Amino acid sequence: MSKPKVVLAYSGGLDTSVILKWLEQKGYDVVAYVANIGQNEDFEEIRQKALKTGASKVYVEDIREEFITDFVFPAIQGNAVYEGRYLMGTSLARPTIAKKHIEIAYKEGAEYVSHGATGKGNDQVRFELTFYALNPEIKVIAPWKDREFLNQFQGRTDLLNYAEKHGIPVKATLKKPYSEDENIMHISHEAGILEDPMLRPTEDMFTLTKSPKDAPDKETVLEIEFKDGIPVKVTNLNDGTVKQTPLELFLYMNKIGGENAIGRVDMVENRYVGIKSRGVYETPGVTVLMAAHRDLEGIAMDREVMRLRDMLMPKFAELIYNGYWFAPEMEFMLSMIRKSQEGVDGTVLVSLYKGNITSIGRKSPNSLYNQDLSSMDIAGGFNQEDSRGFININAVRLKAHHVILKKRMPHLFGGK
Amino acid sequence: MSKPKVVLAYSGGLDTSVILKWLEQKGYDVVAYVANIGQNEDFEEIRQKALKTGASKVYVEDIREEFITDFVFPAIQGNAVYEGRYLMGTSLARPTIAKKHIEIAYKEGAEYVSHGATGKGNDQVRFELTFYALNPEIKVIAPWKDREFLNQFQGRTDLLNYAEKHGIPVKATLKKPYSEDENIMHISHEAGILEDPMLRPTEDMFTLTKSPKDAPDKETVLEIEFKDGIPVKVTNLNDGTVKQTPLELFLYMNKIGGENAIGRVDMVENRYVGIKSRGVYETPGVTVLMAAHRDLEGIAMDREVMRLRDMLMPKFAELIYNGYWFAPEMEFMLSMIRKSQEGVDGTVLVSLYKGNITSIGRKSPNSLYNQDLSSMDIAGGFNQEDSRGFININAVRLKAHHVILKKRMPHLFGGK
Amino acid sequence: MSKPKVVLAYSGGLDTSVILKWLEQKGYDVVAYVANIGQNEDFEEIRQKALKTGASKVYVEDIREEFITDFVFPAIQGNAVYEGRYLMGTSLARPTIAKKHIEIAYKEGAEYVSHGATGKGNDQVRFELTFYALNPEIKVIAPWKDREFLNQFQGRTDLLNYAEKHGIPVKATLKKPYSEDENIMHISHEAGILEDPMLRPTEDMFTLTKSPKDAPDKETVLEIEFKDGIPVKVTNLNDGTVKQTPLELFLYMNKIGGENAIGRVDMVENRYVGIKSRGVYETPGVTVLMAAHRDLEGIAMDREVMRLRDMLMPKFAELIYNGYWFAPEMEFMLSMIRKSQEGVDGTVLVSLYKGNITSIGRKSPNSLYNQDLSSMDIAGGFNQEDSRGFININAVRLKAHHVILKKRMPHLFGGK
Amino acid sequence: MSKPKVVLAYSGGLDTSVILKWLEQKGYDVVAYVANIGQNEDFEEIRQKALKTGASKVYVEDIREEFITDFVFPAIQGNAVYEGRYLMGTSLARPTIAKKHIEIAYKEGAEYVSHGATGKGNDQVRFELTFYALNPEIKVIAPWKDREFLNQFQGRTDLLNYAEKHGIPVKATLKKPYSEDENIMHISHEAGILEDPMLRPTEDMFTLTKSPKDAPDKETVLEIEFKDGIPVKVTNLNDGTVKQTPLELFLYMNKIGGENAIGRVDMVENRYVGIKSRGVYETPGVTVLMAAHRDLEGIAMDREVMRLRDMLMPKFAELIYNGYWFAPEMEFMLSMIRKSQEGVDGTVLVSLYKGNITSIGRKSPNSLYNQDLSSMDIAGGFNQEDSRGFININAVRLKAHHVILKKRMPHLFGGK
Repeated sequence: MSKPKVVLAYSGGLDTSVILKWLEQKGYDVVAYVANIGQNEDFEEIRQKALKTGASKVYVEDIREEFITDFVFPAIQGNAVYEGRYLMGTSLARPTIAKKHIEIAYKEGAEYVSHGATGKGNDQVRFELTFYALNPEIKVIAPWKDREFLNQFQGRTDLLNYAEKHGIPVKATLKKPYSEDENIMHISHEAGILEDPMLRPTEDMFTLTKSPKDAPDKETVLEIEFKDGIPVKVTNLNDGTVKQTPLELFLYMNKIGGENAIGRVDMVENRYVGIKSRGVYETPGVTVLMAAHRDLEGIAMDREVMRLRDMLMPKFAELIYNGYWFAPEMEFMLSMIRKSQEGVDGTVLVSLYKGNITSIGRKSPNSLYNQDLSSMDIAGGFNQEDSRGFININAVRLKAHHVILKKRMPHLFGGK
Repeated sequence: MSKPKVVLAYSGGLDTSVILKWLEQKGYDVVAYVANIGQNEDFEEIRQKALKTGASKVYVEDIREEFITDFVFPAIQGNAVYEGRYLMGTSLARPTIAKKHIEIAYKEGAEYVSHGATGKGNDQVRFELTFYALNPEIKVIAPWKDREFLNQFQGRTDLLNYAEKHGIPVKATLKKPYSEDENIMHISHEAGILEDPMLRPTEDMFTLTKSPKDAPDKETVLEIEFKDGIPVKVTNLNDGTVKQTPLELFLYMNKIGGENAIGRVDMVENRYVGIKSRGVYETPGVTVLMAAHRDLEGIAMDREVMRLRDMLMPKFAELIYNGYWFAPEMEFMLSMIRKSQEGVDGTVLVSLYKGNITSIGRKSPNSLYNQDLSSMDIAGGFNQEDSRGFININAVRLKAHHVILKKRMPHLFGGK
Repeated sequence: MSKPKVVLAYSGGLDTSVILKWLEQKGYDVVAYVANIGQNEDFEEIRQKALKTGASKVYVEDIREEFITDFVFPAIQGNAVYEGRYLMGTSLARPTIAKKHIEIAYKEGAEYVSHGATGKGNDQVRFELTFYALNPEIKVIAPWKDREFLNQFQGRTDLLNYAEKHGIPVKATLKKPYSEDENIMHISHEAGILEDPMLRPTEDMFTLTKSPKDAPDKETVLEIEFKDGIPVKVTNLNDGTVKQTPLELFLYMNKIGGENAIGRVDMVENRYVGIKSRGVYETPGVTVLMAAHRDLEGIAMDREVMRLRDMLMPKFAELIYNGYWFAPEMEFMLSMIRKSQEGVDGTVLVSLYKGNITSIGRKSPNSLYNQDLSSMDIAGGFNQEDSRGFININAVRLKAHHVILKKRMPHLFGGK
Repeated sequence: MSKPKVVLAYSGGLDTSVILKWLEQKGYDVVAYVANIGQNEDFEEIRQKALKTGASKVYVEDIREEFITDFVFPAIQGNAVYEGRYLMGTSLARPTIAKKHIEIAYKEGAEYVSHGATGKGNDQVRFELTFYALNPEIKVIAPWKDREFLNQFQGRTDLLNYAEKHGIPVKATLKKPYSEDENIMHISHEAGILEDPMLRPTEDMFTLTKSPKDAPDKETVLEIEFKDGIPVKVTNLNDGTVKQTPLELFLYMNKIGGENAIGRVDMVENRYVGIKSRGVYETPGVTVLMAAHRDLEGIAMDREVMRLRDMLMPKFAELIYNGYWFAPEMEFMLSMIRKSQEGVDGTVLVSLYKGNITSIGRKSPNSLYNQDLSSMDIAGGFNQEDSRGFININAVRLKAHHVILKKRMPHLFGGK
């Protein structure tokens, strides 16, 4: 009888290496899946380590472009920001990774998938909701929610001992006193010493962005072009560099944003499992793109469409953060966001300087901005006397309310 | 028979001086009302000019503190930001000014009020809606929406000629090529040359904020204390300065924010009268306070309350921007925002440096942040196995949706 | 030189007949446009009257089917109900009528359009916003907002005298003591004696619906089939009648609904111009269709999509009511509603009896209802132990809130 | 050593009797808590049965009035309707019951609480979220989510055998082929044969409401008075009956509503645990009260406040349905709803007849309805010419959008 097959999301780190071995020891045929989503790793080395640790087969998948076009671009279109600040580099990556995970499980005919996310975090939810949405029959092995595994591995020492015992190589480099998640959109830092919300991160923690103090003392001016709310071209007006494909554009935006110290966030946020959590993020490229996008909307998007979209944005961000990318309500949301972005075309000029992003010019072939109409000096087709009727009629309701206002705020109407 | 009495909002500038005289010539008894809301002016000089120009009486009213406590603080509590960027320094000032205007009209027994706002802008709406809400019987004379006045004064030259003819002194200083509105919260620049959305403002336009390039090369660290979402104390940890009253706190925050190049915005926004308009703003102090406030909410505000508040924020900002401060729906909104801020107490550490505001620490006596619970290393009362049930049940709906997903995205499920 | 041409929406009644003549007298070439939207009229007679009164040309346009498919169906898909009760038969008809009006103006090369709606109501707004959206250059002549016309016609007597003077025939029938608007969706009654909100309409006012007291003492059972949220077939299970085309289906639903006393509403509503207004409505067919539609959504629509749609519904209804059918935000809304209705297919059984609509059965090929899963007797793939984790994790936040709850509600926790 | 103490919510039925005995056998000191929330039961008999079955003590608590005033009234104020139809009689009762449950646990110094709700339903969530919110330390024993209990009791037969073995009396009456939940607000019917959504309930299922066919052939007219959105007095204008206290008013409204066949609902709804479920409800009294309340709001509530409240209503209903009564977001919501109801005072006349509720008159001391203003015959202070400006300015944005509209809908603009 053949062994049950499991596809394990494998990072090459201590945890997933131990899990790989542990699954193998429990009698599974373990297929390792390594997602290249832009993190700074030697994927060939990881492949070899997976095989050496017991994987029967290894998939190394470059999902960077799919991540950018299918997940990050819609987030930019929707100005998705979680709790006012977090651009969700990790939240967006998880369903991308999990989707490929399920594709491999289908291809391999595997009944099981496994991941190394903890039981207190958001990532487990993002992975598993994606698994179940894309394959309701799939069985998930989540060792960090498994009583037997939890009993066997109660701390890092147990993992290290197990690794040593089974000949799993452990990197000699010192473990960082916090955990990180990196991809082509961002890097996050959390847990460990960062669990104290009063502790300020030291400068050496930051890897994608320079400190404003160390950034060049000269502004960089970019011209960013959008089509239907999606960035399609970036031109550095300082040196003439042009980038157009999603991948190259992202790599370049991260480089130029990071050099100019753009995109750091330090905050306490709300995890989906009800826990408040501290996170420090670096998102250099997308921070610039989102700012430019929002600026372009100023001239190319109707006011009332913007109102509706802005009202729904927190829900959009919440759904992304909580892992509902493949939920029906997300399909609904994404359809709406795409609709709102029809015609959000044009060019924005942004200046980057020591952490500052300043929009300094914008134009659109679909501009709803009318300089004559806007002008305070000429009429431009606007009859100022119309404003009287506009105000009078909008005041009808307020006048009716006055009776109640007067009762509640009598001090306002002292004289009479 | 006595002359009809009108209370005119008087700034001392060319427009309202001409209006004052024009009203007097039309037979009105003109009471001038000069609001000191923090703009950089010599109010005694304005008083004298009003009298000289024909006012029978002049009120110079310091409404700075009322502006801060009754209008700006609620906006900070609600994180009110218009169209993603504008903090609404002008929008908030208008109802403050108009409220005192109506109080004076009551006191003077005046049947009329008058203002010099144009017929294409937002301010006319903000003024008049406040007038009508607070006194439904009041009659408004808005010369810039009056056919007779518009015919008489078709451009700046007509105003200057009229001023010369009637001995109204006109400041020798060159008129700026754009218009400005200043108060203790911000300064705005718009119209004129700024009507070209591709034209970048020159550095000499900015008056409240240094350029990031000219700001000190040393960070300033502030400790900002909030009570129920309202800033109550600021301590400069660099030099020990402490400010506590609303007025002193604001003056100081503007100074320190401005020195550190905080709070510039350049955008195209939507006016209430349906026109898109370009505005450049400087809001040094409140930009810092709002960032710190948002950061504090991270630890002191419940997640779901935040969701609801964030969803309603765009509407709150819209109502402020459009001038509905004394509308029933605003009373409703303000009640909700106050409720959301109960217990948003605590202290935030922010670093200011060359345009950057970075939250570097936060604590609250009502903190909902639980370091043990948040920890990735210890359980802290959280049973990780609970997450399995949580995810499984949240997946029930997604599994049901799979059938439909499969029909719509067959490529996803290639293998089987 | 040719006369300026105006297309006038002409009903054949006293008001628009006077307007027609008045326009002709003022030197316009008047093209009369008579919309057949399902009101009970002799259109040939109206055509003749228009010609006789001075129209140079008459268009009688049957826009019933366009009204149903392009305006009423989307409203059903979106469950559009204004202020909890009004199904907006008039609001939906206005943009349909105005759209054809503009089409005729284009065809005729007319520079002007004219309508007889009053200056205090909603219809003027619905007409004119549609005019301007579809032809920003069009000029609107709205006599009831025209000072000259208002001065000439200060009451009904003036209209009657003018009619007599110009040989305009006036129907001998007594004018009803309230005004009505009828189309294939509904009839409204308002104004006149109904302006007293305590006055109960007498039974003779109702024209499309029987009184529950007079309706048959036998229930009618209908099977209503929907495709993507749109009714496509109705079968009367009592007698086997089947109706399928939009027009026949509507005519039949009105008949059967009206016979069974369905669809009366009596309410005070808020007009867009800020006035509260009393309306009495009869909407027999659509009331049944909307109830059946909502019932079908129960099994065929995802919960969270429904939540989002339900939250947006009041805005959708508001936009319809206020006349923004051709606004960008409506295009956005309609796109969203269509998306939400994908797969809302199936059949609902409804019983009609003396004013009652009862859903008595529903099924869908895309049903998300799973009888096994729903069952309280069998597991159906649901692990009840999962609920523990689900609840525990949802309680994490509530437990954190307890400290605050305890401070605010100490009486709750007396013992300890 | 003393036995651990558990407070068990005890209904007197088979399930909770078995649970009582099972807990006792497992070594618990079982305190039975019987909530009288208006269900039709002999509470003294239940008390005796609890004692006989092994309870060391029994609390029978009349929580009907608290239920009405603290839970149902706010729901009426907020027009809370779940998924368009369900008035949530059960959802509102659960936190009332659970709150008293926790109060008893505090008083008894019990470490445990227990309930007999199943693991697939909503009630477990509503109970347990309330438990944890009011006492984060409490331990919950939910046998229907307990592996041991589930193994022991796999079907009704096991329960019956256990009951027989332990001398627990089982009612001779035949078990109904569906389950019911009754209180002073409503009765629900679900599960069993009702799990087939095409199966129409037979008439004998309904217990609180007559069939429209059997209701009196004479209308009943009620005058219902509200103060701040809460019903304070009901007068039957047919016979002069007056009811004023919450309890008497509710008992009477149920009686009169039920006699007139008001308040039946049959629907498929979404449970919080992700399952769609069919429910049949009878809510005679509150259905009438809610209709009257909504009608009163028509004259006494500002339009824009109503818009905001209506948008939030689905969320309010969702929170109630899901059991979040004591959550921070509910505290926030309730504060908002109370605010919206300030001044919703007045009287509504409703006619009840064979299932129909018709509002036939309404008046309020705070009426915002102005008959003169509303009138189509007189100006009433409204200048119809103002409407021109109002429309023109609202059209500015639509005219700008025309360019885009024209591209998307070229067929509309054929002529030119």
